[in-house]
Amino acid sequence: MAGEDDGELKLIGQYGSAFVTRVKLALSLKGLSYEYIEEDLRNKSELLLRSNPVHKAVPVLIHRGKPICDSQVILQYIDEAFAGTGTGPSLLPADPYERSVARFWAAYIEDKLVPPWDRVFRATTDGEREEPLKQMFAAVDTLEGGLKECSKGKPFFGGDSVGYVDVVLGGAVSYAKAHDALFGAKLIDAAKTPLLAAWMERFCELDAAKAVLQDVDRVVEYAKMLIAKNAARASN
Amino acid sequence: MAGEDDGELKLIGQYGSAFVTRVKLALSLKGLSYEYIEEDLRNKSELLLRSNPVHKAVPVLIHRGKPICDSQVILQYIDEAFAGTGTGPSLLPADPYERSVARFWAAYIEDKLVPPWDRVFRATTDGEREEPLKQMFAAVDTLEGGLKECSKGKPFFGGDSVGYVDVVLGGAVSYAKAHDALFGAKLIDAAKTPLLAAWMERFCELDAAKAVLQDVDRVVEYAKMLIAKNAARASN
Repeated sequence: MAGEDDGELKLIGQYGSAFVTRVKLALSLKGLSYEYIEEDLRNKSELLLRSNPVHKAVPVLIHRGKPICDSQVILQYIDEAFAGTGTGPSLLPADPYERSVARFWAAYIEDKLVPPWDRVFRATTDGEREEPLKQMFAAVDTLEGGLKECSKGKPFFGGDSVGYVDVVLGGAVSYAKAHDALFGAKLIDAAKTPLLAAWMERFCELDAAKAVLQDVDRVVEYAKMLIAKNAARASN
Repeated sequence: MAGEDDGELKLIGQYGSAFVTRVKLALSLKGLSYEYIEEDLRNKSELLLRSNPVHKAVPVLIHRGKPICDSQVILQYIDEAFAGTGTGPSLLPADPYERSVARFWAAYIEDKLVPPWDRVFRATTDGEREEPLKQMFAAVDTLEGGLKECSKGKPFFGGDSVGYVDVVLGGAVSYAKAHDALFGAKLIDAAKTPLLAAWMERFCELDAAKAVLQDVDRVVEYAKMLIAKNAARASN
């Protein structure tokens, strides 16, 4: 539960960001309390620009005045800085080989699922969206095997409890759920990837996840606004 | 120096790969011996396909029969699996915040320097090469600040000794040195990025680096061959 140091944690985020949701999930799972600062990305704050001068992007976690940037870097920081302080199980397992398997699949999500997902939102026509959508579905198929490898028949990528890969993928579950309403097909479909579909239901039922996951309807609205903005920019 | 377990280490690599060189550097710095298996990427081996079924790519480190894939995942595995076994200093520092700073810059190299570098080699005309070349130079400029932040005036990103970021960037130094011969401009130029230029000289003088860094002339020949092949493919 919340300890003395928690007051020294600040998170600069933005509601629509799946990367920010990863960090919220990790903080929630660890039971760490923090001050949340919602950023207006059209008018970036002095605090954001000073804290993340290289990328000028969210999320940024500030711990005792020191900024940590990049969602996966922040997750590992939370895991290491608050290790053994009674704040819930480690995200990464102790065994070096199992850690490497978790890192492999987290990198897979970052390299093979996130970039086409991003292109789907930036596409300005259905035609432009076709190829990245195909790549997303292929990545989800491969990830079904990743879940099998990581979980070894247990409920989560992390085994009996939620781990690193769960959080990395978990940040995007509201977008996964919004996919059908946005693009007319389920991204995670029990008929095609039954393990992932069951995982998603289970994950969303966790108290720590319920507390921070984005509202799916609000994500749909936010995504529609983004897509319309990109389309308008392209037609100008 | 080499211990009993070292005979159980195999590295599947390819001479031209900067990612493989990262792993060779880490193994060399740790004084670990291993069996090296050169892969023919035009005719991939059963061992590679079985060891890295997701990406079918090098490097793969096999430790006691278990494969570890992705160069940054492998580097962290080596650091953790051989920690405290008298095999040289840790690549990542002990302090969680300093670890996060090193991971941030390693991710920066992967996200901002490697992709345009890749596009420079895939480009089939000088015109196509212009934009990614510009991005590479911008990334190197930013990295000059990263070296300043990480090293705090000491010789390496890792401080007094070579660390994680040194190895991640170090894998590419032969390509950095080949840049002038290939594209007519120094990538790391003492006039523009004096800290990085001095770092590169210092890094290349390390015995552990000398032992494994690719020969620059051979890299130039290999890169010319790649570029010609891509250009021929595009004109067919």
